[in-house]
Amino acid sequence: MSKEPIFDVAQLAHVEIYSPKPDETLWFFKELLGMEETTRQGQSVYLRAYEDFYHHTLKITEAKEPGMGHVAWRASSETALERRVQALDASGYGQKWIDGDLGHGAAYQFVTPDGHQMEILWDVEYYQAPEEKKSQLLSRPQKKPLRGVPVRRLDHVNLLASDVTENRSFLMDQLGFRLRENIVMNNQSEAAAWLSVSPLVHELAFMGDQLGGRGRLHHLCYWYGYPQHLSDIADIFTENGIKIEAGPGKHGVSQAYFLYVVEPGGNRVELFGDAGYLIFDPAWQPVTWKEEQLEKGIIWYGSPLPAEFFMYGTPVIEPAKV
Amino acid sequence: MSKEPIFDVAQLAHVEIYSPKPDETLWFFKELLGMEETTRQGQSVYLRAYEDFYHHTLKITEAKEPGMGHVAWRASSETALERRVQALDASGYGQKWIDGDLGHGAAYQFVTPDGHQMEILWDVEYYQAPEEKKSQLLSRPQKKPLRGVPVRRLDHVNLLASDVTENRSFLMDQLGFRLRENIVMNNQSEAAAWLSVSPLVHELAFMGDQLGGRGRLHHLCYWYGYPQHLSDIADIFTENGIKIEAGPGKHGVSQAYFLYVVEPGGNRVELFGDAGYLIFDPAWQPVTWKEEQLEKGIIWYGSPLPAEFFMYGTPVIEPAKV
Amino acid sequence: MSKEPIFDVAQLAHVEIYSPKPDETLWFFKELLGMEETTRQGQSVYLRAYEDFYHHTLKITEAKEPGMGHVAWRASSETALERRVQALDASGYGQKWIDGDLGHGAAYQFVTPDGHQMEILWDVEYYQAPEEKKSQLLSRPQKKPLRGVPVRRLDHVNLLASDVTENRSFLMDQLGFRLRENIVMNNQSEAAAWLSVSPLVHELAFMGDQLGGRGRLHHLCYWYGYPQHLSDIADIFTENGIKIEAGPGKHGVSQAYFLYVVEPGGNRVELFGDAGYLIFDPAWQPVTWKEEQLEKGIIWYGSPLPAEFFMYGTPVIEPAKV
Amino acid sequence: MSKEPIFDVAQLAHVEIYSPKPDETLWFFKELLGMEETTRQGQSVYLRAYEDFYHHTLKITEAKEPGMGHVAWRASSETALERRVQALDASGYGQKWIDGDLGHGAAYQFVTPDGHQMEILWDVEYYQAPEEKKSQLLSRPQKKPLRGVPVRRLDHVNLLASDVTENRSFLMDQLGFRLRENIVMNNQSEAAAWLSVSPLVHELAFMGDQLGGRGRLHHLCYWYGYPQHLSDIADIFTENGIKIEAGPGKHGVSQAYFLYVVEPGGNRVELFGDAGYLIFDPAWQPVTWKEEQLEKGIIWYGSPLPAEFFMYGTPVIEPAKV
Repeated sequence: MSKEPIFDVAQLAHVEIYSPKPDETLWFFKELLGMEETTRQGQSVYLRAYEDFYHHTLKITEAKEPGMGHVAWRASSETALERRVQALDASGYGQKWIDGDLGHGAAYQFVTPDGHQMEILWDVEYYQAPEEKKSQLLSRPQKKPLRGVPVRRLDHVNLLASDVTENRSFLMDQLGFRLRENIVMNNQSEAAAWLSVSPLVHELAFMGDQLGGRGRLHHLCYWYGYPQHLSDIADIFTENGIKIEAGPGKHGVSQAYFLYVVEPGGNRVELFGDAGYLIFDPAWQPVTWKEEQLEKGIIWYGSPLPAEFFMYGTPVIEPAKV
Repeated sequence: MSKEPIFDVAQLAHVEIYSPKPDETLWFFKELLGMEETTRQGQSVYLRAYEDFYHHTLKITEAKEPGMGHVAWRASSETALERRVQALDASGYGQKWIDGDLGHGAAYQFVTPDGHQMEILWDVEYYQAPEEKKSQLLSRPQKKPLRGVPVRRLDHVNLLASDVTENRSFLMDQLGFRLRENIVMNNQSEAAAWLSVSPLVHELAFMGDQLGGRGRLHHLCYWYGYPQHLSDIADIFTENGIKIEAGPGKHGVSQAYFLYVVEPGGNRVELFGDAGYLIFDPAWQPVTWKEEQLEKGIIWYGSPLPAEFFMYGTPVIEPAKV
Repeated sequence: MSKEPIFDVAQLAHVEIYSPKPDETLWFFKELLGMEETTRQGQSVYLRAYEDFYHHTLKITEAKEPGMGHVAWRASSETALERRVQALDASGYGQKWIDGDLGHGAAYQFVTPDGHQMEILWDVEYYQAPEEKKSQLLSRPQKKPLRGVPVRRLDHVNLLASDVTENRSFLMDQLGFRLRENIVMNNQSEAAAWLSVSPLVHELAFMGDQLGGRGRLHHLCYWYGYPQHLSDIADIFTENGIKIEAGPGKHGVSQAYFLYVVEPGGNRVELFGDAGYLIFDPAWQPVTWKEEQLEKGIIWYGSPLPAEFFMYGTPVIEPAKV
Repeated sequence: MSKEPIFDVAQLAHVEIYSPKPDETLWFFKELLGMEETTRQGQSVYLRAYEDFYHHTLKITEAKEPGMGHVAWRASSETALERRVQALDASGYGQKWIDGDLGHGAAYQFVTPDGHQMEILWDVEYYQAPEEKKSQLLSRPQKKPLRGVPVRRLDHVNLLASDVTENRSFLMDQLGFRLRENIVMNNQSEAAAWLSVSPLVHELAFMGDQLGGRGRLHHLCYWYGYPQHLSDIADIFTENGIKIEAGPGKHGVSQAYFLYVVEPGGNRVELFGDAGYLIFDPAWQPVTWKEEQLEKGIIWYGSPLPAEFFMYGTPVIEPAKV
């Protein structure tokens, strides 16, 4: 008899990033990626893509260094939230309930074994478009903006971890994430893992931190869905002095059509340019890429990844001198 | 306290259609849509798209008239299957267990209130590519074919029903489908409903049968994900004498970028040309299109739907003489 | 011995349209189509697309009624200009030299037999981007704008004519246009003709004016080159209340991937969404569509043309009552 | 008074390449690029893309080594041909008239200063599709094939030269090519030049042969026009073991969206994935990329070029040992 899966986490709700250059970071997300500012409070600005349904999916907080503030997950129901809080509490990685933030109610904070700050919540505030932004496309929370090349929705986060297996197992055991793909080296170490709670290949990935850091952000990713929009935004990035780290190109892993840039505050951002593939098989066997299969796994076709892709994360750590 | 959802059905597994011209129907699916033949048995041929993971997603059975044989759903687990069989049995619409078919094990048969034949199953046979068709893209069950404009996977079925509300409620109550979008006319009748068990807007839709039929097929849909491929296949259809009924165009409902054709056997087939939008919100409130909003709901932009779109289904019924 | 062709006209230089709602017309071209305003003078505003090299390609002049002011052609050389002026003068359709306008020097005015106002010129002013708009893409006269879905360059004009053959012959004989495609009805009348001086299928088309008008504009066309941008601008048009007359769809004639809208001032505008095909054959035999081939000629696939497409032009004429 | 340009050469007519593996080379062009075989004779096979109008645009001839047989240009008229033959004859690089080949009549042979074999001709044989391949799209010489990802037409050739300036000047002076773009290094040497006789940025490019060779082929290029098709063929290449040298990516020079591969016989082939930009300005000033602007000129965005791109050509020369 197959084991019953856990369906208690529904989705990635929002991500908070830190920026030492909040004005430039805002310009990047608003003018180039066409995101919408919901509100500001304290040192933080709250943004959403035009097809994001909630109050925000991105919180940009001014800070001395770039990095990730926290990742928030939405539970599948109130009961599901309670179950997960119990599990997290028992795991030793649970922290405490907070009253919430702009855009959502009570949230339970916890950390990954590596120390990435996370929270899980149920109550969310839905974005309500003012009259002039209401779309006749009823499933679209607002009209498509006329600025830049507008991203559609938050897609995933990719985190660096000192121990991939420990961190991904924690999320699988405590939150019900499923392992979709991973990379296993010849020495049997797990170099990276892609996890999801939905048919997406991942809402979350862990990659081994080659600089020995803990709890760092590799990138967050917004979604276009259309390949042409990666060409369009790549053009806009080049015109506007934003260095493209890699892409457009197609990963074998996750089949993502990718583009990576570093926003002016220093955090890496991925833009996702197609639908990828979706996993509906309830008995999915993880796709494991062995070391000798990795070349095609990293790049199926297109722009190769530079060495810094495997090193750079935020907060920034200087590679040890050789 | 929000009610706990049912997660017992994982996906649309396969569809059987009837064709009075099986050779021509096969040519359509194999040479134009690039599908792969797995095997033949009796009067049936079993096919899959190159990114379909199981033995088949389409069974074409020779018959006097076009129409739908059955729709098969895969449960989320063995236990989930048992729960659903109990519910179906209790509903009065359950029928019986069958030993299975090529490509899958035991399946429980049932009908919708309208009489559409369905089954639910757990055991499936995975497609194993022969050596020369194995892809180095490990999440792809076989190499992309070199014939036609190859579709990637089965997406959904759309069924005509004498009573939309009754049929969609049955699937929501007995199988856990969620209502994603619907059309409600000024007289409060529900003209159509889009349902899913996953973040897809629908694996199944019901539309009112305006000719008074019961249990008919409106269309089945295969997925490309890329808009250009709708242009490519539209070109190929025109070159090869396949009449395009409508499209390419964009529905407001479901945000699908669509193309509709009638395959040589008489069944309508949709090709889906982009990623659409995905629903991750666990508390999703159905999008309801009122009669006065319907124009944009049916066509957001692009090719309009002809009158026959709202009438024609298989098996074919002649419209009553006026 | 084959006759030597005339190479004296190089390109479509600019078009002037009249608008009774100049503010709304400007909003359409600047905010939705991302065009750039070069300057204003009197009742006119001068605009260009971001890949147009000259001072302007569109002059919008306030007027009581929509319609076309004039079409300007650039000669291949000063000598070529002189030859064409002599020919036009001898044809009886030449008018007079003018000193020029903003953006260009002396121009020779003439009319088509139908009375469309045209001019031919040599001296042009090149657009010089201010420092902050200079692109590092040296063949691009300025950075790609961040507004709307920016068109790339002026493509062609389509004119209604009381006698297609007379008007197209005039341009072939006097200016060296080549006939690329035409439509010939069963009664041998020429219903439409597509003409060019370059490998483009047309910089100019004539269609028979079914309302009996003379000298009217059917549409002017700006070019995207990429199919996705037609979907993008169609979405933007629907969001912003601009009625799409037809498209996206693919003409058989000219192989254009088209979208037609009426700008707020009343003039029809086409957006061209792919590269079309180019004619390099110096002995090109015109492609003639007969009446029975016309269905595929008008629509190869996609959105059909409504009846008004064949009637509406500017200035507007009311169809005679039946 | 501006000088009158020469309009005597109309287009690139065809290219002959040598292959030591003719069967594999044929498989590449027919099964992957969807080209059509017109005929075979001796050690040669004649092919065309489905939108090529003449008998062939590619002649593949079996030989010990890969390389280019010859490049053929079509004149604008018989008289134009005579003028060019006189000029070539006077230049000292003219050779002799030949009776022709399959698919064309008399041709005049000549060489570039570097020794690339070329010919110029007027009489061509048009491809006539058999009944089952006739398309209802009258400007398309045959139906779009159902094999691979079919290229549409021959676009250009790129030749390595020991002296770029000498070779491009020869073609400008004797045949009327216009210089569209070039690269000039800090030491004033011209590293590369792009030339055309039409609004295309180039039908011919010369790049300095860094290995000191003479008369070698860098690549020939077939055209798709649609960006998605570069992704499609890149996928097919990876699936079928064809190494992608670079791309998809966007050159600044020529604005080409490119993909480079080496066909099994050893010759480099480019696939061109969009419309690029077209030059209609009759007084076009060449775009000159200086050494410090070159990075963006080579790659505007996307896949970088490997070192071998600047070395490898056919026939193959081994780089001198350091």
